Amino acid sequence: MSRVGIINPGAMGISIAASARAAGHDVYWSSAGRSEATRQRAEEQNLLALASLNDLCASCDVIICVCPPHAAQSVAEAVIDAGFRGLYCDGNAIAPQKAQAIGARLATAGIDFVDGSIIGPPAWKAGATRFYLSGSSAEQIAELFNNTVTEAIVIGDEIGKASALKMAFAALTKGSTALLSAIYGTADQLGVRDDLEREWAMRDSDSVAQRRNQVRNVTEKAWRFAGEMQEIAATFESAGMPPGFFVAAHDVYERMAQFKDAENPPEIEVILGALTKQQ
Amino acid sequence: MSRVGIINPGAMGISIAASARAAGHDVYWSSAGRSEATRQRAEEQNLLALASLNDLCASCDVIICVCPPHAAQSVAEAVIDAGFRGLYCDGNAIAPQKAQAIGARLATAGIDFVDGSIIGPPAWKAGATRFYLSGSSAEQIAELFNNTVTEAIVIGDEIGKASALKMAFAALTKGSTALLSAIYGTADQLGVRDDLEREWAMRDSDSVAQRRNQVRNVTEKAWRFAGEMQEIAATFESAGMPPGFFVAAHDVYERMAQFKDAENPPEIEVILGALTKQQ
Repeated sequence: MSRVGIINPGAMGISIAASARAAGHDVYWSSAGRSEATRQRAEEQNLLALASLNDLCASCDVIICVCPPHAAQSVAEAVIDAGFRGLYCDGNAIAPQKAQAIGARLATAGIDFVDGSIIGPPAWKAGATRFYLSGSSAEQIAELFNNTVTEAIVIGDEIGKASALKMAFAALTKGSTALLSAIYGTADQLGVRDDLEREWAMRDSDSVAQRRNQVRNVTEKAWRFAGEMQEIAATFESAGMPPGFFVAAHDVYERMAQFKDAENPPEIEVILGALTKQQ
Repeated sequence: MSRVGIINPGAMGISIAASARAAGHDVYWSSAGRSEATRQRAEEQNLLALASLNDLCASCDVIICVCPPHAAQSVAEAVIDAGFRGLYCDGNAIAPQKAQAIGARLATAGIDFVDGSIIGPPAWKAGATRFYLSGSSAEQIAELFNNTVTEAIVIGDEIGKASALKMAFAALTKGSTALLSAIYGTADQLGVRDDLEREWAMRDSDSVAQRRNQVRNVTEKAWRFAGEMQEIAATFESAGMPPGFFVAAHDVYERMAQFKDAENPPEIEVILGALTKQQ
């Protein structure tokens, strides 16, 4: 059984931590600077609280990082500074070259690295959430999730493959919704939104409601998708593909970031107001 | 009954011309510089051949232009030079500001203008093809297609609305396929295409074949979609929306332009070879 540290137990991280707990491992988290709501979530899942990142790094054999993409590198630096000497897995939505850079940096501090990425919703039921892993020590991370609802899949020895897969997968889901949102904004600004929806409806009577909901349901998450779009743009560029889709998608999600705390999905007209406001 | 000139009777143009014929109008075309195949198609639809654009402009009350977007302005200039004095309808996939510029230019020569755009396949059966029209004389164009398989729909008095609708509609269909193609290229270059397709298949067993076919079936038309992507980029820019999706989509379709004369859709591996070749 391993001693696993989780950074940070947000909506996704807590579910991954819960799977490791279910497999019988001790799972720790650092409560420094975290909210009371996070503490409650962690206690409900029987995670063990430690007072600081230093304590976490001293207590754990393995650390798994699940954080927004912009924070991935600074978390890795903080773990180095805290003197960690075990196996570190980055599970974030970052470009493969960023994962490789993190791995190289950790290696200079004697820390072994596994590239990871999570596809699917927070892992609370079987069959929905895959934790993709790559790197020479990937099996060690995969084994932490044996017989749990987190399906760990090793896709190779190479650092960057797990991240590349996440980027390509999210490019379609989140890229398509950004594209659709920008089309709504353009049609609205040019006075043809009703005409466009009527043409869509003639082809498929359900399509207008589906497309409005696709845009409406992304608004709450848009604030954190913006950074992921930058990672995907960098990924496309490194693969020799045109990155412009995701430069634009980043702009779209930035314009929607204001809906972060909305209780219900806003009406399409409210979203269009935010999208088309003079930048 | 009107005397209608069609520029040019390509795959789409010939079907629009056939509808105007079916409604009882005389439909003319200029055979100057056109192929024997075009002549045969025109004769089959009982179009009347004239020797030159000058003759066409002298003989017709109405001219409808259906051509690739890059040629729209030069055709309008040629019609001015040929001394046309009737009603001119541009039915091309161009940015609304380009339609407005063409209309303004034609007005200086005393030519009345209607903005048009065609959504759907060539108009050979009812219910599939809409000819959207806008401008103060739009009804005059719409009436040419009464009781035919070309469904003419007037969406306003304003030049640019018909073009804007086409841009927004094509942005989703052609933009989505360009995005998917670029994702395939990225995943392939980064060594995760099989992993990506396996993840897609776990979510929907039909999705891999559907997505491969979506990419494969666009290749033959990619050469002419490239110019349309530039028009959509300009449209998004004029609406204050980020144009990068279509800058990238243009690059993707340019890379596929080589498949113009392919008899059958190429295999995905062949397409990926073209997409990922060093640019």
